[in-house]
Amino acid sequence: MLYFEDFQPGHSLPLAPKAVTAEEVVAFAAEFDPQPMHLDEEAGKASILGGLSASGWHTASMFMRMMFDGWLSNSSSEGSPGIEFMEWKKPVLAGDTLSGRSTVIECRPLRSRPGIGLVRFLHEVENQHGEVVMRGENPIMMRLRQSGEAAICG
Amino acid sequence: MLYFEDFQPGHSLPLAPKAVTAEEVVAFAAEFDPQPMHLDEEAGKASILGGLSASGWHTASMFMRMMFDGWLSNSSSEGSPGIEFMEWKKPVLAGDTLSGRSTVIECRPLRSRPGIGLVRFLHEVENQHGEVVMRGENPIMMRLRQSGEAAICG
Repeated sequence: MLYFEDFQPGHSLPLAPKAVTAEEVVAFAAEFDPQPMHLDEEAGKASILGGLSASGWHTASMFMRMMFDGWLSNSSSEGSPGIEFMEWKKPVLAGDTLSGRSTVIECRPLRSRPGIGLVRFLHEVENQHGEVVMRGENPIMMRLRQSGEAAICG
Repeated sequence: MLYFEDFQPGHSLPLAPKAVTAEEVVAFAAEFDPQPMHLDEEAGKASILGGLSASGWHTASMFMRMMFDGWLSNSSSEGSPGIEFMEWKKPVLAGDTLSGRSTVIECRPLRSRPGIGLVRFLHEVENQHGEVVMRGENPIMMRLRQSGEAAICG
């Protein structure tokens, strides 16, 4: 179980790999983002994305599951206040296999919430060609193993 | 049909309302974010979120659909390069009804892509009590009605 104190700036944690199917791309788009390039192969090919491509919000949601399966489920996470930035760098196409990592940027105990610390991550999601398709930073709240402001990470 | 030139800084466009059901909260979480507070009423009540609560990525995905139905489907959108920031301010609980708006911050033609302009939005999602549950900024690429750098928005 990973507590606040276990996260080291510069250290990377793996995201679990994820194969992206056409069925999943279309199902997500039909519910949340019904733009033609996310629903139809021909419309995707005609767009700047070059094929049936996942909604950026689908990629973000798949990243969440990849992070959960990769390491978050084995941590003392108390959730996140938000996203500092997220960039969609390349299309995610049906048939791609995604992987990646979360790298610790910094961490600090929260004065406002004793027993909780904030760990900031750079997340990078890549396709099977090693191209970064999405990257972003976000802070995640982690419980401390030992209480008190003396706790440090790394 | 809304083109780049039609977006005015300071002008707000409505997000379509969305009722959040427990079934949707659990289905999204089971696929993308299987943390207990998103899967189970009792676990949600025991967490800081206070009830069965939507994953932040579910709220973001619902926002995308609210934006599509509210105004994006009637625009010349060419997609978005990412999210500048996104804050999850309050829990989104099963039974909530969400609404909100996208407000134009600024807009400029892209020198690198003739015929396309970038419109930056502040998006705000509220619950039925008028509380902001999520807010964030993101740029969306819009086709110009008239080509050329002389085009201005507003």
